Amino acid sequence: MPTTDSATLELAIELIRRRSVTPDDAGCQALMMSRLAPLGFRGESLRFGETDNLWARRGSDGPVLAFAGHTDVVPPGPEQNWTHPPFDPVVRDGYLYGRGAADMKGSLAAFVTACERFVRNHPGHRGSIALLITSDEEGPAQDGTVKVVETLEARNEKIDWCLIGEPSSSHEVGDVIKNGRRGSLHGYLTVHGVQGHVAYPHLAENPVHRVAPALDALAREFWDNGNDFFPPTTFQITRVEAGTGSNIIPGECLVHFNFRYCTENTAESLEERVVAILDRFDLKYDLQWHLSGRPFLTDRGALVSATQDAIRTVTGRETQLSTSGGTSDGRFIAPTGAQVVELGPVNATIHKIDECVKVDDLETLSRIYEQILVELLA
Amino acid sequence: MPTTDSATLELAIELIRRRSVTPDDAGCQALMMSRLAPLGFRGESLRFGETDNLWARRGSDGPVLAFAGHTDVVPPGPEQNWTHPPFDPVVRDGYLYGRGAADMKGSLAAFVTACERFVRNHPGHRGSIALLITSDEEGPAQDGTVKVVETLEARNEKIDWCLIGEPSSSHEVGDVIKNGRRGSLHGYLTVHGVQGHVAYPHLAENPVHRVAPALDALAREFWDNGNDFFPPTTFQITRVEAGTGSNIIPGECLVHFNFRYCTENTAESLEERVVAILDRFDLKYDLQWHLSGRPFLTDRGALVSATQDAIRTVTGRETQLSTSGGTSDGRFIAPTGAQVVELGPVNATIHKIDECVKVDDLETLSRIYEQILVELLA
Ligand SMILES: [Zn+2]
Ligand SMILES: [Zn+2]
Repeated sequence: MPTTDSATLELAIELIRRRSVTPDDAGCQALMMSRLAPLGFRGESLRFGETDNLWARRGSDGPVLAFAGHTDVVPPGPEQNWTHPPFDPVVRDGYLYGRGAADMKGSLAAFVTACERFVRNHPGHRGSIALLITSDEEGPAQDGTVKVVETLEARNEKIDWCLIGEPSSSHEVGDVIKNGRRGSLHGYLTVHGVQGHVAYPHLAENPVHRVAPALDALAREFWDNGNDFFPPTTFQITRVEAGTGSNIIPGECLVHFNFRYCTENTAESLEERVVAILDRFDLKYDLQWHLSGRPFLTDRGALVSATQDAIRTVTGRETQLSTSGGTSDGRFIAPTGAQVVELGPVNATIHKIDECVKVDDLETLSRIYEQILVELLA
Repeated sequence: MPTTDSATLELAIELIRRRSVTPDDAGCQALMMSRLAPLGFRGESLRFGETDNLWARRGSDGPVLAFAGHTDVVPPGPEQNWTHPPFDPVVRDGYLYGRGAADMKGSLAAFVTACERFVRNHPGHRGSIALLITSDEEGPAQDGTVKVVETLEARNEKIDWCLIGEPSSSHEVGDVIKNGRRGSLHGYLTVHGVQGHVAYPHLAENPVHRVAPALDALAREFWDNGNDFFPPTTFQITRVEAGTGSNIIPGECLVHFNFRYCTENTAESLEERVVAILDRFDLKYDLQWHLSGRPFLTDRGALVSATQDAIRTVTGRETQLSTSGGTSDGRFIAPTGAQVVELGPVNATIHKIDECVKVDDLETLSRIYEQILVELLA
């Protein structure tokens, strides 16, 4: 096996062994810094609340290429359902198994080893290489990337190109990269009725009966058709709750819903349209909003081109640009004006039992990351 | 004060002092038997599960007039919200306060003292007087009246006239009696979808979106117009529940609903109609039914006439027949062929904080019960 093979795999294994369930970093960032410091990276620990963040940078000039990622993982669920213990990684049949193997400790390891080779070959590279690592990407994401970005903005430290290690690939590493994400907007609706006994409905007002046609109207609404970069905006009810007793007409009905929206709408336009639909029905309601992330898009440019070229150089693959899927911490970085691209391993097993990554893909990914560094900073 | 005044009031007070929250009888039935035994009643304790039931009878011939009632009370809620402690009854400004004063320990006391006077005046009355008392009317009602009725049926012991002490009166004692009740039918619907992440709605199927128009259709459905005896059938959704996480499309949606239905429909016709409505929508669902009680009706006849006459004789009032309101244990007794009438105190405060009954109404009620005994069995 070539050295680099085992270097990326071994670092990934060491990271997975650290039980870093959100928001716990469990020493992962220190482990990464122990590899980066000898390369000349200056590390800065930025702890907010219970979240550990790391900002590490090599170089003081622009342009800045920052790798963004997270050390936290989602809980493993019942550990007895795993073929191997989730925090005791095992290589079998060419796959590395463990919680975080694909999302995203494999990417972290691949970028660190990419830096090791790149810095060795290009000690005097132009610009700066940086890492923005958080331990709260899978959680509320209040004290993670968003706070680090605020800190950087406050001191006018700028990221030009942001490479996010999220598992973007569909079947083979590099077949898909994300150059944007839809926005995510949560709505919390409370419809007020009048509680009462089912035997006396004339003395009560059933909020479930009131809201049912409004929910139907919202679910049927055509929001937009998407565009060249984004699929159409989608609306999903994620929770509905009313009533407890078997003979009681509920006093209120709670409805939670979520938009994944493209740039054909804005959070504001969606909020207005929801209110307009609700107001067609005779409802007494409260409505709260939480904007989880605005949509962002990185059109053609140096970062997209470098990433496409690097994937072609290393794998021979033509990559596909996508903006589908969930949100990512790119929503916090893109508004600073950075170009943002997400490239990571195959996402088939993320957040699942027996999460795994192909061992060869870790090496390939490390080579692609290295090649991106070469294209942009060599 | 006349003796009978204080006799009913004092017995009501003694009963309320016994903290008989469902299914606890707390000695109420023994207290009643201690008054009935000297009159020649043979008492039979029928305990099923945690429920105490009493079947007491004076006489062995027909016709049988049975008084039906319950010693259990609903929980008082936070006792500090009561002006007086709920189980420490107090008379103030002509009202007796305490949990169960109106529902239905006042009625129990009134019927016992009515028997005392009636038996004294008519020791050789025709037919039989009986009492069917349970301690589980306010609860699941599985081990109460329904089991006693089964016991009586099994030995071919028949009730001709059943007088239920439920608080039927609206403003003044005797202004309303119930000569029937609507049926109560519960439906438990589970709509199956496919759980998934809100970012990938094409891989999921939202059961809330699916069921919303069906719920609207059910809520808008015209079931019937009622008839001379019953108000129209009503449908109410009592519970709806789906979803937990903020980014998860729920896998199922639970919907509980209840019909209060009149004799223009049957449980079977309603079940068929619900299925027909659900099947207009493209739903995968399970549907369970629980028939809580079929509707029953006691049309004109000896019991209704005797009750109306007795109210007129004692109070000068013309009583109104009603079938509105919740269910009662009459649903278990009427199917045996018994005539069933409900007559009890004003129901304004039942199941509430500071439940109370007018002291004078206890005496009036006892006089009416006595007069019914006179009309039917003297
Ligand atoms: Zn991730
Ligand atoms: Zn009652």
